[in-house]
Amino acid sequence: MVQEETLNRVRNAANQLGYRVNGMARALKTRRSMSIGMLVPDITNPFFPPVVRGAEAALAEAGFCLLLSSTDNDADKARSQLDAMIEARVDGLLLGMVRRRDPAVDRLQRSVIPAVLFNRTVDDDGISSVVPDDALGVRLAVSHLYELGHRRIGLVVGPLFTSNGERRLRAFRREARRLALDVRVVEATAFDETAGLRASEQIIAEFAGMTAVVAGNDLLALGVIDAATAAGLSCPRDLSVVGFNDMPLAGRLNPPLTTVNVPELSLGRTAAATLLDVIANPDRPPDQIVVPVTLVERGSTAAPADKDLRASP
Amino acid sequence: MVQEETLNRVRNAANQLGYRVNGMARALKTRRSMSIGMLVPDITNPFFPPVVRGAEAALAEAGFCLLLSSTDNDADKARSQLDAMIEARVDGLLLGMVRRRDPAVDRLQRSVIPAVLFNRTVDDDGISSVVPDDALGVRLAVSHLYELGHRRIGLVVGPLFTSNGERRLRAFRREARRLALDVRVVEATAFDETAGLRASEQIIAEFAGMTAVVAGNDLLALGVIDAATAAGLSCPRDLSVVGFNDMPLAGRLNPPLTTVNVPELSLGRTAAATLLDVIANPDRPPDQIVVPVTLVERGSTAAPADKDLRASP
Repeated sequence: MVQEETLNRVRNAANQLGYRVNGMARALKTRRSMSIGMLVPDITNPFFPPVVRGAEAALAEAGFCLLLSSTDNDADKARSQLDAMIEARVDGLLLGMVRRRDPAVDRLQRSVIPAVLFNRTVDDDGISSVVPDDALGVRLAVSHLYELGHRRIGLVVGPLFTSNGERRLRAFRREARRLALDVRVVEATAFDETAGLRASEQIIAEFAGMTAVVAGNDLLALGVIDAATAAGLSCPRDLSVVGFNDMPLAGRLNPPLTTVNVPELSLGRTAAATLLDVIANPDRPPDQIVVPVTLVERGSTAAPADKDLRASP
Repeated sequence: MVQEETLNRVRNAANQLGYRVNGMARALKTRRSMSIGMLVPDITNPFFPPVVRGAEAALAEAGFCLLLSSTDNDADKARSQLDAMIEARVDGLLLGMVRRRDPAVDRLQRSVIPAVLFNRTVDDDGISSVVPDDALGVRLAVSHLYELGHRRIGLVVGPLFTSNGERRLRAFRREARRLALDVRVVEATAFDETAGLRASEQIIAEFAGMTAVVAGNDLLALGVIDAATAAGLSCPRDLSVVGFNDMPLAGRLNPPLTTVNVPELSLGRTAAATLLDVIANPDRPPDQIVVPVTLVERGSTAAPADKDLRASP
């Protein structure tokens, strides 16, 4: 696109001369579709619908509509959906499906469409993002298990090509060292129940004496519980499990899931508000907003049973 | 729009002369965005994400992207989102938020954008729809309760301005007459847990001796269980509850929910396939595809306890 080149040169020159873009004035002049595109990795992950709802509410207040796509964790799908969004002349993009290194994000940064990442971010910090406090969440989960008496703890981490996966792993390793825990880590191939089941079959079989698992998200936690049940272990009697997200219905499950609460509505709202700010102030430097998390203690965690009485895995 | 008038006149004349539109040839000539718009009433209702996923899969196979909006059951929001979809030049629309009489649908029928309704339909049958077998679902739910021994049964029905609400109510009344049941009906103001709680507080307080409730969907069923718990009744010991949809996680709840399974992925797939057919064959007469449903018996239903031993509501 020749226009981009020109635009950048003009913008640089204007910056050097001390001009700043007045977003609202520009908005009145430029033709807008008054719609924002949002890409989530998997709409059937119950974590995302309330994030979408939060973003939609904030955008509606500003007069914008939301167009949503679910990429199904597929890079090709993400690319064609991004193209459809751009074709639809969206005024901005909320991206929740990014990988730590993501060509789609690189491409966007060279275009003129404002974008904000949410839930996941990229390694390169040239783009604004709104993410949960991954490190705090894992610290809270591990501390909770430690205080219950657990010392041999597994981590079923999400894919390490995502920032959530990598950051939660790093925090877990740090806590394990600090508390001198005996740990094992297994990487799930996706953030869903099936991947959680597969990954934890392995860790349950190989890590004798493991009494607790921290899961990369709530769906992975359900997979861990399924694998435990299949191995004749009951949750929380034989295996405590902590999730991440506190997805809707997590408290109504059997057992009710102990998990790290990410305030989904607020995460979505904040991402949308940040995007609106980026649209209004194109020269705003990129930043990362970290949304605080809390631990919700429910029925899937308990003190470890006496090891001699436990069914061996 | 003058063009619509002209188009209709041309189409009618062509029809009379025996011409039929060749959809694929037309597709090659007309400029397409290769995207389809989908409107759901509430993306945080766990029923919808797998419907979306099913539609998306079928559309992706045909090279179309899906742009999704959640109307939050708000007619104004629906209107502005429809406008955004049309502005985005979608090639067709999948509408899941319609009311039995819906100005948005009337407006669409006068336009040239192909549309298919899913899950809900309108009273006027001028537009194709793909809906669950509401009547069969209710029949299966009531028969199940009858066979367990229940004779005093409540219905917490969804809003009667929706086809789901109205059709499920009609089927319930019919079954109640056929089986000479003692019944009460209360209409919830929405298809969510809060509305279910409110509506069933009333029926639990007023309908003495009620041993079972059929709920208009699974979220309403959760509200019923909450209201029962608050009234000191335990599900299923004191009150059996049947949901509708079999949303994801329904089988993992406490108690696991007995519910009418609507095959969500397949409903979404069928709706998308029908829309693609309408796009390819604009003169295809509108029809209604009814998707079969089944009853999934789980832990929220049981034989009624001995009345003398039951805690009175």
